[in-house]
Amino acid sequence: MSGSDDKIDLTALKTFSRWTPVTIRYSDQDGMGHVNNVAFAAYVEAARTMVLKDLMERFPRPAIKFVLARLAIDYLREIFYPGNVEVGVRVVGVGTKSLVTGYGVFFQDYCVATAQCVNVCFDMAARSSVPLLDSIRHDLLAQIDH
Amino acid sequence: MSGSDDKIDLTALKTFSRWTPVTIRYSDQDGMGHVNNVAFAAYVEAARTMVLKDLMERFPRPAIKFVLARLAIDYLREIFYPGNVEVGVRVVGVGTKSLVTGYGVFFQDYCVATAQCVNVCFDMAARSSVPLLDSIRHDLLAQIDH
Amino acid sequence: MSGSDDKIDLTALKTFSRWTPVTIRYSDQDGMGHVNNVAFAAYVEAARTMVLKDLMERFPRPAIKFVLARLAIDYLREIFYPGNVEVGVRVVGVGTKSLVTGYGVFFQDYCVATAQCVNVCFDMAARSSVPLLDSIRHDLLAQIDH
Amino acid sequence: MSGSDDKIDLTALKTFSRWTPVTIRYSDQDGMGHVNNVAFAAYVEAARTMVLKDLMERFPRPAIKFVLARLAIDYLREIFYPGNVEVGVRVVGVGTKSLVTGYGVFFQDYCVATAQCVNVCFDMAARSSVPLLDSIRHDLLAQIDH
Repeated sequence: MSGSDDKIDLTALKTFSRWTPVTIRYSDQDGMGHVNNVAFAAYVEAARTMVLKDLMERFPRPAIKFVLARLAIDYLREIFYPGNVEVGVRVVGVGTKSLVTGYGVFFQDYCVATAQCVNVCFDMAARSSVPLLDSIRHDLLAQIDH
Repeated sequence: MSGSDDKIDLTALKTFSRWTPVTIRYSDQDGMGHVNNVAFAAYVEAARTMVLKDLMERFPRPAIKFVLARLAIDYLREIFYPGNVEVGVRVVGVGTKSLVTGYGVFFQDYCVATAQCVNVCFDMAARSSVPLLDSIRHDLLAQIDH
Repeated sequence: MSGSDDKIDLTALKTFSRWTPVTIRYSDQDGMGHVNNVAFAAYVEAARTMVLKDLMERFPRPAIKFVLARLAIDYLREIFYPGNVEVGVRVVGVGTKSLVTGYGVFFQDYCVATAQCVNVCFDMAARSSVPLLDSIRHDLLAQIDH
Repeated sequence: MSGSDDKIDLTALKTFSRWTPVTIRYSDQDGMGHVNNVAFAAYVEAARTMVLKDLMERFPRPAIKFVLARLAIDYLREIFYPGNVEVGVRVVGVGTKSLVTGYGVFFQDYCVATAQCVNVCFDMAARSSVPLLDSIRHDLLAQIDH
């Protein structure tokens, strides 16, 4: 993936300027008494939809969606109900047809998980992936450099 | 709710001729180590959508939806992962603008929960509830008598 | 259910003094594009666990749990991602062996759903339901009168 | 990760001899009308717990758990309610303190997603990761060679 920056530390609070709060639910727990891994996928999604919504509002193209192609979560610590997580999100990579977002999931200022997502630029009418517009590409690359 | 039949025993296997299997998921469990109550709402929904799909296919009216107005679940026994539940469903009541469905959730031939749902006949264009067609009403009443 | 008070209006903000916020998740939506009915069961649970935790802390009896026996939800309005709901909760009824809690789910100050839950006082060691202690019963009845 | 075999094709039915069926739920869908990405994490978990259960039964060590450290899912195709997925699972890698499992999620004989999970061998009493027993390590390596 060209433009992906592995030096971005997703476990550091200062990496992120955009945050999404999510309340932990009782039903997020599993038989181990801690929050189940599946719930983290929903926490990450809450932050991802904020980034994509922002992108689609600033570069409106009704026929284009950013389809999730890959989700990878690294679990660092257990967390327990009740409470809230804060999910930091930022762009960490840009490809020809895709963008890569990075996530830090924090609970009481500890990083409890990190994640990366790849979303592919997809033309819903043509049913195929398409290159990112140059204007979007430049905007995303500028976000990585911050 | 006119036409609702309280004599229908939702805990009996023989009450139902229509069944929907649902696999229990590890993440359905909660901190108590048993299946969480929220998961039962999803089990009931699996069976409810089957009934409504059948109704909408036999009486096609694109502008009409059967909107869920009420869900009530009675929890009778704990269940544990892994395994499957079988959800029995049948019509138990018919109102002027609504139908009432009854459910028995079975695990290894034991009834572990029963449920009732009220769905209201709703005109999506007019954004208001509307009476059931007489043809649907008769069809539903015939199902109760079985 | 003795002591249950049907005059308590669960659709009114002023009915509740205890509130639990829950963030709506993207995955709470369903194919209709609105929040799925199952998610409401998780919203109600968030508030219910707060009430039961408070009760178990003020009247500690390790062998006693309040087991959910019934959940009934009335759906009043659609809601959409993103946003938060605020779930109001209060005691609305007391039985010999059970308590009844009432819920109002609010989105942007509109009541979008109400719910009632019955929890039974259960001795985990004896594996059977037991009467509420008089001290708990009086405490709960006092909460209804407020 | 030593011993991980990238030549194993997770999109091929013949790669797997162990299968876990999971029923798709109506509430697995999201606002796009297809099954939401979060649900796939639950499908993968259904298969993962089968492998770990088998391992813990054949090599019983009560103080040792295999804690999920990483989950990565590649989404290949959309799927829609209703129906079932079949999740194939096999060991694809073995480290000093961890095992790597690979997954193929199939819908109507098409591979719709693949996944990899890393589980770390963890001593619950000592609260730290520990090496895999040689006997388990050999067993897992033999599974890769098949």
